[in-house]
Amino acid sequence: MSDLEIRPAVIDDVPAIVAMLADDPLGARRESPDDLTPYTAAFERLSRDPNQIQAVAVRADRVVGTLQLTIIPGLSRRGSTRSIIEGVRIHAEERGSGLGTQLIEWAIDESRRQDCQLVQLTSDASRTDARRFYERLGFEASHVGFKLQL
Amino acid sequence: MSDLEIRPAVIDDVPAIVAMLADDPLGARRESPDDLTPYTAAFERLSRDPNQIQAVAVRADRVVGTLQLTIIPGLSRRGSTRSIIEGVRIHAEERGSGLGTQLIEWAIDESRRQDCQLVQLTSDASRTDARRFYERLGFEASHVGFKLQL
Repeated sequence: MSDLEIRPAVIDDVPAIVAMLADDPLGARRESPDDLTPYTAAFERLSRDPNQIQAVAVRADRVVGTLQLTIIPGLSRRGSTRSIIEGVRIHAEERGSGLGTQLIEWAIDESRRQDCQLVQLTSDASRTDARRFYERLGFEASHVGFKLQL
Repeated sequence: MSDLEIRPAVIDDVPAIVAMLADDPLGARRESPDDLTPYTAAFERLSRDPNQIQAVAVRADRVVGTLQLTIIPGLSRRGSTRSIIEGVRIHAEERGSGLGTQLIEWAIDESRRQDCQLVQLTSDASRTDARRFYERLGFEASHVGFKLQL
């Protein structure tokens, strides 16, 4: 396979990112890839926030993976900065290629570079493969994740 | 009991916030309330970030509760903005008074005011009372929370 590049997304990557968000058992019910308006507006807002990185993995000029990394300063744990990973998606044709591992390792390295002491994420309990995947990368499944829709 | 005010913290609130972070079964091992330097530095950073609110609950001029609310714009769920609640602490003398509920309801209202479509948080699996508390407030324990110490 050709070389992989992981870099911050630009506005032209948004359609490919949204297509990956929608091509997912949970995302299929939640996304509307035919109308990009809310996504481009959200991307503009996110791009102005220095504590947000929407990352894309690109191979042969094609976006094949994405995740969002948020840097969160805070008081707890002796003033630790933490990072949160959201919306990890791998293109269907790249699943099982190790790209997920490369993307998460990129996010861990970037978190370290930004002086984070903790990386955290939540995964829907119905994603049964996720637990083994994240534990293999050194994460501990120590928490319960709660969500409230407004 | 006298009136409760919930407001963004100021630098003078930091010692009381740190005391509450440390007065906790998990926090006792993680915090160092005798040296406030890392906490004041973190507070300065957090205060400059418009997407961060360190909130305090104040009764009779005394800080009796705290939480951190982070606003996170994002692409997934049709460009939804979500909020994350971290570091919820209630002063020992106020536990069981309903203050936890008031603080979380404040965070939910503030999230709604900032056009969030989702509020999320994680709780250490060892905090066995937390699940009932958050479910009573409408949260769904749908996720597994992973953490990696750097």
